[in-house]
Amino acid sequence: PRETVNDECRFVPVDMQVREERLKDDLLANGSFGAVDVETGRGRTVLTGSEADERARTRLVETLESNGMDVRIDPVGNVAGRWTPPSADPDADPVAAGSHLDSVPEGGIFDGPLGVYAAVEAVRAIRDAGYEPKRPIDVVSFTEEEGGRFGVGLLGSSVAGGHRTVEEALELEDDGDTLGELLAEIGFHGSATIAPEQWTAWLELHIEQGTVLEREGLPVGIVNAITGITNCRVEIRGEADHAGSTLMNERTDALVAAAEFVERTDEIAREIAATDSEFVAATVGELDVSPGARNIVPGRVALSMDVRDVDRSVMDDVVTQAQRRLARLETDRGVDTELDRYRTQDAVEMSDRCMDALAAASDRYGVDRLQLPSGGGHDTMNLAHATDVGLLFARSRDGMSHSPREWTDWEDCATAAQVLAGALVELTDADR
Amino acid sequence: PRETVNDECRFVPVDMQVREERLKDDLLANGSFGAVDVETGRGRTVLTGSEADERARTRLVETLESNGMDVRIDPVGNVAGRWTPPSADPDADPVAAGSHLDSVPEGGIFDGPLGVYAAVEAVRAIRDAGYEPKRPIDVVSFTEEEGGRFGVGLLGSSVAGGHRTVEEALELEDDGDTLGELLAEIGFHGSATIAPEQWTAWLELHIEQGTVLEREGLPVGIVNAITGITNCRVEIRGEADHAGSTLMNERTDALVAAAEFVERTDEIAREIAATDSEFVAATVGELDVSPGARNIVPGRVALSMDVRDVDRSVMDDVVTQAQRRLARLETDRGVDTELDRYRTQDAVEMSDRCMDALAAASDRYGVDRLQLPSGGGHDTMNLAHATDVGLLFARSRDGMSHSPREWTDWEDCATAAQVLAGALVELTDADR
Repeated sequence: PRETVNDECRFVPVDMQVREERLKDDLLANGSFGAVDVETGRGRTVLTGSEADERARTRLVETLESNGMDVRIDPVGNVAGRWTPPSADPDADPVAAGSHLDSVPEGGIFDGPLGVYAAVEAVRAIRDAGYEPKRPIDVVSFTEEEGGRFGVGLLGSSVAGGHRTVEEALELEDDGDTLGELLAEIGFHGSATIAPEQWTAWLELHIEQGTVLEREGLPVGIVNAITGITNCRVEIRGEADHAGSTLMNERTDALVAAAEFVERTDEIAREIAATDSEFVAATVGELDVSPGARNIVPGRVALSMDVRDVDRSVMDDVVTQAQRRLARLETDRGVDTELDRYRTQDAVEMSDRCMDALAAASDRYGVDRLQLPSGGGHDTMNLAHATDVGLLFARSRDGMSHSPREWTDWEDCATAAQVLAGALVELTDADR
Repeated sequence: PRETVNDECRFVPVDMQVREERLKDDLLANGSFGAVDVETGRGRTVLTGSEADERARTRLVETLESNGMDVRIDPVGNVAGRWTPPSADPDADPVAAGSHLDSVPEGGIFDGPLGVYAAVEAVRAIRDAGYEPKRPIDVVSFTEEEGGRFGVGLLGSSVAGGHRTVEEALELEDDGDTLGELLAEIGFHGSATIAPEQWTAWLELHIEQGTVLEREGLPVGIVNAITGITNCRVEIRGEADHAGSTLMNERTDALVAAAEFVERTDEIAREIAATDSEFVAATVGELDVSPGARNIVPGRVALSMDVRDVDRSVMDDVVTQAQRRLARLETDRGVDTELDRYRTQDAVEMSDRCMDALAAASDRYGVDRLQLPSGGGHDTMNLAHATDVGLLFARSRDGMSHSPREWTDWEDCATAAQVLAGALVELTDADR
């Protein structure tokens, strides 16, 4: 039956619709696990292996099963529920969709769960509309995406994608407890295989965690690439002196030199953003001063520099300019400096096939969108070498994330889930 | 007997001389208490009430007594040894000299002890030379000058000077222990009175902790004033955002704004130093970034600003210019800012009488010197309202202090002690 998505006729009439209320109920129920008490917004702390994690996982398994899916759990606790409708060839490679359920400490309720429960809702909507997919659909939740407990982000997907062995992952320790022990305790150390090679395609819906969509007035964005990232540690060493007895011209103040570096790094990225790639970003997020006393001229500053762009050469350029500035600080200010570029990860391109499916679904349901890169990493990165991948962003309010103030309007959640469902229809070649 | 101070005839022939070896032995013996193991230099950790403190105090008491002084201890553990030679009127107001024996964690062996043991050596030299002072001499060591244990610097002298009650001081807590309990445990909670009103004058010898004397090639300096100090807390608030998904032109980065403030504060002080008072200093010694994660744009920076000058209006000017810069950061960078000037202490002038006595002694022994302000605070500050005060600096190597690399050549220690002894001769109106 053809119907409109809501009374305001936001979409063109469609033959399938996700239900906003059902998705909202799921997200609120999931958000109650590890809920933190805040005045504004909704927060939760769901660290891998915690009671909150156990409850969130258990509810997901029950939801998958009650919607007719077969649940499997792999050794690192990744969860997949497979829907094999009568129309599907059970041996055909499934299409998969999902995200993660863990959170940073005092994070929000959308980062991760939206992608998992939107996939659940998509399966329900496809089923309710009487569609007949020719392939099974896997709904997936990966373990420890945030690295909130073991310090390793994208952990579950890195194992699923073959970038890390099961053993390495299970031996990770937090305060004496290993991941393996914690998963076993909560009953999520399984033996099934969840691997992207088995899938014909993978889709992840995630909140944007930025402000591009909000600024453009669009509910969703189709990601064309996850930007590359370079991380550097920078150390600037001067001379720690008594603040009262060291004349200004006798000082080698490490913090003043570091301040110039921080300002200049910001300028470099702004200059490139103005002329080249709008999406370049350079951030000094950590800065530690030693000895760090009111009355001592700083002798040493350690800081982090995080550089992102879809283009490797742009990242290289930012680092080169930063190194040049450090050399100049050595000459001008007499400090010693050191830059350690300890991690460089190239950009990951999304598959045309998945982007096309998301675009076709947007067109079908009259959802305006744009293409944009993702500056943040996502589990999707770990799957791109093994299958076709796509990443869809839902509009965030004020770009807030990793905070109880993180928010995506329920209407936008539903609109994004609708596009996800439409793309799953495309990719499973469902009969309409 | 007239003799030269040493074989190289550094001084004009004099009728009295301090002995470098005796002073060195004292400083090395005292420096062995709480000694820290370092590759270069000599370090010690002597926190009030510790075993190292007990041993240092006990050795001082024994040294005072073995040199014919009557020891008294006040309720906050200040120690004074009174030498009343037969030539002196026992009821005449004594002249006092001293400093402190405590250290910062992993501090040096000269900061404090030089002033205490130089006063001991001065008494010995005056006695050995057969001088006949008309007044008694008090050799004094004040408790907790560094604030290394209870966080309150110049503590013992603040009680002696009447700026803080005994009760307030004794109730100060460190990790559950009060100063009163700790002093009682080590046997240094006395009942005597040690008060500057009783003294006709006070002299303190201290290492410079700066580089002025070294640069000028002079062994000692006579302090004309302890500079004033203003402390401010500055807070700069922007917006914490994800470093990957927030475009450069969408950011309100609190650290970039703080960096501009740090650089500008340094410039302001350098500009004033170039044209007005060489001794102005402005220091940002502490800077904390929140949330302080590699991949999050800083949302909040808290920093400290320490401003010093002998002239109150110069300090006011620095703070006013800093406030102006904060206002500009609000306009230019969209941050919120706050400056809390929580402490302002005016400069303390040294007494002409004491400066003259130190200058006369320098002349007598052929010791070149200059006048300079002290940028650091000293116990002497707490006594200036109650008696005539003088402060003598000994040359520091590389300005190092509060570190095992703190150093003053033994020859310079002796030269400074010689000047101190000469000034005590002047102030006690000793018959030569």
